[in-house]
Amino acid sequence: MSLTPADPDFESRVRASFVRQSIMATLGATLTRIEPGIVEITLPFADHILQQHGFVHAGVVATIADSAAGYAGLTLMPAGAGVLTAEFKINLLAPAQGERLIAQGRVIKAGRSLTIAEADVFCEEGATRTHAARLTATLMSMRDRQGVAD
Amino acid sequence: MSLTPADPDFESRVRASFVRQSIMATLGATLTRIEPGIVEITLPFADHILQQHGFVHAGVVATIADSAAGYAGLTLMPAGAGVLTAEFKINLLAPAQGERLIAQGRVIKAGRSLTIAEADVFCEEGATRTHAARLTATLMSMRDRQGVAD
Amino acid sequence: MSLTPADPDFESRVRASFVRQSIMATLGATLTRIEPGIVEITLPFADHILQQHGFVHAGVVATIADSAAGYAGLTLMPAGAGVLTAEFKINLLAPAQGERLIAQGRVIKAGRSLTIAEADVFCEEGATRTHAARLTATLMSMRDRQGVAD
Amino acid sequence: MSLTPADPDFESRVRASFVRQSIMATLGATLTRIEPGIVEITLPFADHILQQHGFVHAGVVATIADSAAGYAGLTLMPAGAGVLTAEFKINLLAPAQGERLIAQGRVIKAGRSLTIAEADVFCEEGATRTHAARLTATLMSMRDRQGVAD
Repeated sequence: MSLTPADPDFESRVRASFVRQSIMATLGATLTRIEPGIVEITLPFADHILQQHGFVHAGVVATIADSAAGYAGLTLMPAGAGVLTAEFKINLLAPAQGERLIAQGRVIKAGRSLTIAEADVFCEEGATRTHAARLTATLMSMRDRQGVAD
Repeated sequence: MSLTPADPDFESRVRASFVRQSIMATLGATLTRIEPGIVEITLPFADHILQQHGFVHAGVVATIADSAAGYAGLTLMPAGAGVLTAEFKINLLAPAQGERLIAQGRVIKAGRSLTIAEADVFCEEGATRTHAARLTATLMSMRDRQGVAD
Repeated sequence: MSLTPADPDFESRVRASFVRQSIMATLGATLTRIEPGIVEITLPFADHILQQHGFVHAGVVATIADSAAGYAGLTLMPAGAGVLTAEFKINLLAPAQGERLIAQGRVIKAGRSLTIAEADVFCEEGATRTHAARLTATLMSMRDRQGVAD
Repeated sequence: MSLTPADPDFESRVRASFVRQSIMATLGATLTRIEPGIVEITLPFADHILQQHGFVHAGVVATIADSAAGYAGLTLMPAGAGVLTAEFKINLLAPAQGERLIAQGRVIKAGRSLTIAEADVFCEEGATRTHAARLTATLMSMRDRQGVAD
């Protein structure tokens, strides 16, 4: 797998796209790492993103994991291509709690039309880090489709 | 598969649990149907839940689908049991847009410790309904675990 | 979703392709239904396809479910296109035992390049039918690729 | 995650269980590595395990990946426990061809009742190794269930 980005502007592209994801601001998530094939998103624990037992909702965990995996894929796509998720699966390994969640996405295989990426989500509480979730996703690289770029 | 609820109070249990899911209020989602083995959640399109191309974020689609599937499972669980998602997979079939999303969860198999449920998500725009996503989930029925009920 | 086959010869195409799947003869599986968007495969219980507890191996269940879903997809693809599985997920609902397994594949959404299909697997024992597995798959329609047709 | 096997006899248990999986002999697969939390299965390319284009069938790839992941889980389970797959998902990254397939399973999280494991499948052809598939699985540790051990 080539980890050479097809677009030298990959970092600013990912940043600009992330800002357009209004759900990230709604959740309180920020981009904390962008490298070729790797993207990290951090989400502080907060009272407005929980499920009924006081853990972060599995769908919220999936949201930051999906974006981390998707943007990891976008770092390797050519300028003008847009990324869409075709499917993902997530295994929840531990309740999502602590001070913050860190979602680390990385590309497993970058193809011309389909890219396979994964993400791990960790909970951090002081010096303790717990593996909370693993996601695998199939991403589509869309070209020349009106309104779908980056 | 038995669709007889083990707890006659299943509807009020689901309603009370849903209110405790703060993410649902954050997204703007509401419970619109509760029957034994079936739960429906409705989410109006809104500017604060989107991804970069202006569609509802796949993780948001997954969040309401996961809750619909999970609460479908909870309708069949005995009083005192809590429901947690062990894993889910979602296939995104069409961009999530329109006036509202409807997530319909239903139980495929209710077991003592594991329940398998699925959810379809539809986009509604006027009289048009589009199939936007299909999710399948493995749910755990937790008993006698501190802080995990309903 | 259109259930109109793009190729009127879809049935003979599926039959000819199935015969080329040597694993089907190895397992003892046969095609028992072909309609637009629907394919069924039947596998008699046999001593050479088992896991350690005497049930049919989950991978064997997945093999017939994947082929049933894939061929359901192929019934709707244009002449010359080949079908490949990009990913699938399977939930095992009950141990695979009895006299035979029936895998019923059907298309959920037929797209130009990606098709989403699912399959249910049932165990039959006398007049009893048990739901043993549910699979969802993402299929790729390959065109003009050397060696990949049907 | 503890990689200390709960049963010092884990290796002979895995070997004895593998021999009882008749599908492995049918496919031609052998156990090539057993360590705490890690199991590897090797499958030579052969004419009786193929799909229609001459590649190893995705279900066969899944079969060895599922057994590698499942036995990786079994290495960490206490004596008398049996392992069953609740679900798995597999992403096919490249056509399965070459001289042999190697499935490497490893435990991601070992829990009391549920274990999460994954497997990578590689194709080998001379000195070339290609990443062909990634699987993630949820395994159940069954205790005191008649006929389900190892």
